[in-house]
Amino acid sequence: MKTLSILGSTGSIGKNTLEVISRHPDRFRVAALAVRDNIAALEEQIQKFRPDVVAVFDEAAAARLKLNNPPVEIVEGEQGMIDVATLDGVDTVVSAIVGSAGLVPTHEAIKSGKDIALATKEALVMAGGIIMSEASERGVSIIPVDSEHSAVFQCLDGRDMGEVEKIVLTASGGPFLNKSAEELEHVTPAEALNHPNWAMGNKISIDSATLMNKGLEVIEAFWLFNVPVEKIGVILHPQSIIHSMVRFIDGSVISQMSVPDMKGPISYALSYPDRIGNILPELDLAEIKQLTFEEPDTKKYPSLSLTYDALRAGGTMPCVLNGANEAAVEAFLDGSISFTGISRVVSGTMAAHKAGKGETIEEVIRASEWARKKAGSMIKGLTNNKKACIKA
Amino acid sequence: MKTLSILGSTGSIGKNTLEVISRHPDRFRVAALAVRDNIAALEEQIQKFRPDVVAVFDEAAAARLKLNNPPVEIVEGEQGMIDVATLDGVDTVVSAIVGSAGLVPTHEAIKSGKDIALATKEALVMAGGIIMSEASERGVSIIPVDSEHSAVFQCLDGRDMGEVEKIVLTASGGPFLNKSAEELEHVTPAEALNHPNWAMGNKISIDSATLMNKGLEVIEAFWLFNVPVEKIGVILHPQSIIHSMVRFIDGSVISQMSVPDMKGPISYALSYPDRIGNILPELDLAEIKQLTFEEPDTKKYPSLSLTYDALRAGGTMPCVLNGANEAAVEAFLDGSISFTGISRVVSGTMAAHKAGKGETIEEVIRASEWARKKAGSMIKGLTNNKKACIKA
Repeated sequence: MKTLSILGSTGSIGKNTLEVISRHPDRFRVAALAVRDNIAALEEQIQKFRPDVVAVFDEAAAARLKLNNPPVEIVEGEQGMIDVATLDGVDTVVSAIVGSAGLVPTHEAIKSGKDIALATKEALVMAGGIIMSEASERGVSIIPVDSEHSAVFQCLDGRDMGEVEKIVLTASGGPFLNKSAEELEHVTPAEALNHPNWAMGNKISIDSATLMNKGLEVIEAFWLFNVPVEKIGVILHPQSIIHSMVRFIDGSVISQMSVPDMKGPISYALSYPDRIGNILPELDLAEIKQLTFEEPDTKKYPSLSLTYDALRAGGTMPCVLNGANEAAVEAFLDGSISFTGISRVVSGTMAAHKAGKGETIEEVIRASEWARKKAGSMIKGLTNNKKACIKA
Repeated sequence: MKTLSILGSTGSIGKNTLEVISRHPDRFRVAALAVRDNIAALEEQIQKFRPDVVAVFDEAAAARLKLNNPPVEIVEGEQGMIDVATLDGVDTVVSAIVGSAGLVPTHEAIKSGKDIALATKEALVMAGGIIMSEASERGVSIIPVDSEHSAVFQCLDGRDMGEVEKIVLTASGGPFLNKSAEELEHVTPAEALNHPNWAMGNKISIDSATLMNKGLEVIEAFWLFNVPVEKIGVILHPQSIIHSMVRFIDGSVISQMSVPDMKGPISYALSYPDRIGNILPELDLAEIKQLTFEEPDTKKYPSLSLTYDALRAGGTMPCVLNGANEAAVEAFLDGSISFTGISRVVSGTMAAHKAGKGETIEEVIRASEWARKKAGSMIKGLTNNKKACIKA
């Protein structure tokens, strides 16, 4: 029996995690759940999974929950998230809080010796060096939940990294695969949120449309698998059936496929090193008929190049890229900037940043906050321009 | 340094094996070579690889070789093949003699404790039970060289077979993929030999065109991986890039790909459990653009169903299927029967066979000889019919 804490239990990954757990009640027990503010969904989860503790980040929401007097200990705020991440008796923490808010609780979970099922890619994007060395020191396993990294992890299956020639992450190309770079200037948030293969949260859906998500995954792969940046590639594969692959020195390529459903990688992260049944339906390739591939166009997807630049610059630069992107995506979603403005904001913020070493969590958080602020002022500039254009 | 004997060194697999070895002279030493009668090619190999012993099956050819006095010990006949298969100091025997002639030397190699890099699928088709239990008793590893089985072996990579839901062998569909069942009646040997993806010997090329080769591979997989017949499937994949795959109980599918070149699986069989470099060029999926899949049409490819029937019947039946097929392919190649006659001969021979247990090598060889004889008389019948038709 594995005892779990789930950070971000009402998000897309969190819900799928609970679905996997509910199919294997003999294997997994939920000790704690943490959410931002979705009390309604959390109350249902408390009913069904009977955790010992729940954390609610938003204190007003926590207060509302307490009024309903659910049969569970309630903690709140950032300290509440950390309490859940470090709870005694928990074996594995499922880290599935979207964005940089997941960094500190994930780091604390590692420091308290918990294994991590990692969906919060920002933890590695912002602080990969800190996280991986802390995990290695404490003998903590970090098992990826992202479908691409789970695929790579399954393809490697413990093989010597010296035998790896290239890790190739697949990218669906998002909803705008067949649009030209010029057409992208005018796409709307609703169009960008309409991902062809995966049902995901808003932030990650936009990141999929810009390919920033893939870029962040390149950074994540860099840290998870400890490979040089030249050994990480990206290929467009619109059907999202092959989730990623590994090319070995003998020219052999091992790939992992499934129907696109996050319950696959989640279940592997929970059951690893075993596999468990009753997770995904059969992949029927004869019905799918074809899998296609193409090189990503970096002119159309500048975010992808930016992430390679950030990785090469190192230190706090990936963290700044991520912070600027978070701000830019919010600005796109609220209509302040255009779709193509996202990468311009990120690029401009990176250009203004002098990378620090990024050796402490405090330093990367400062860098991230600086990036969001810097990006914010660039966004204002773009918005003013936009207004000026509309007036003119 | 691994010391090798190569049975069938002048065939397609044998030559590719020597090419792999020549790229890694620090890892592999050739102690012995065995051929049927291709003295000219053998003499070049002796020059280049300086084996201690060579075996020539054909005694007249052996006599001609002796006249040239090459710097090597020469043995001959079936005993010569066995001498090479059981040579002292040899670690691994590469078993790459086409057809049933490979059975006895492979069996003797296992009995003398050699690991086997197995290309001669007939050894398992004819005598899988005997071979696998002998190997298990002696602690001998049997590493597949067929690209499909190598793929499965790489995808499994030591995982618990209880986690396997299905082994799916890919089949190119051969040169007649786009012909109808009716059109197949009139195809010529030259057309059938023209395989779209793989350069192979004649026998296996015809078997690829009928899909009998895939059927024999199903039988081979049954024994190699110890899975029930219902857990082995076949899918058509004309590009021959995915060499096979394994579907696990969680719905995750691991596949192995490469450019279609036998040096890939050969090198893995030789270097296992390591991988070695300088074998195959990079697989460029963006250049290949698409991989396609379809269900095999068992009406068009009756040989595939026949092999499942043979496996279910068990005992000597797969051996009889194989012997009848050998005779029928020869008859097709020399123009005696039509392409579609091949499966009719095999089916007729199987129908006339009462399967024995197949518990000794002698018994399976007797069954095989019976099958060739029975098939021969059916072929005569078909030929007479053909002549009668031409006259009429």
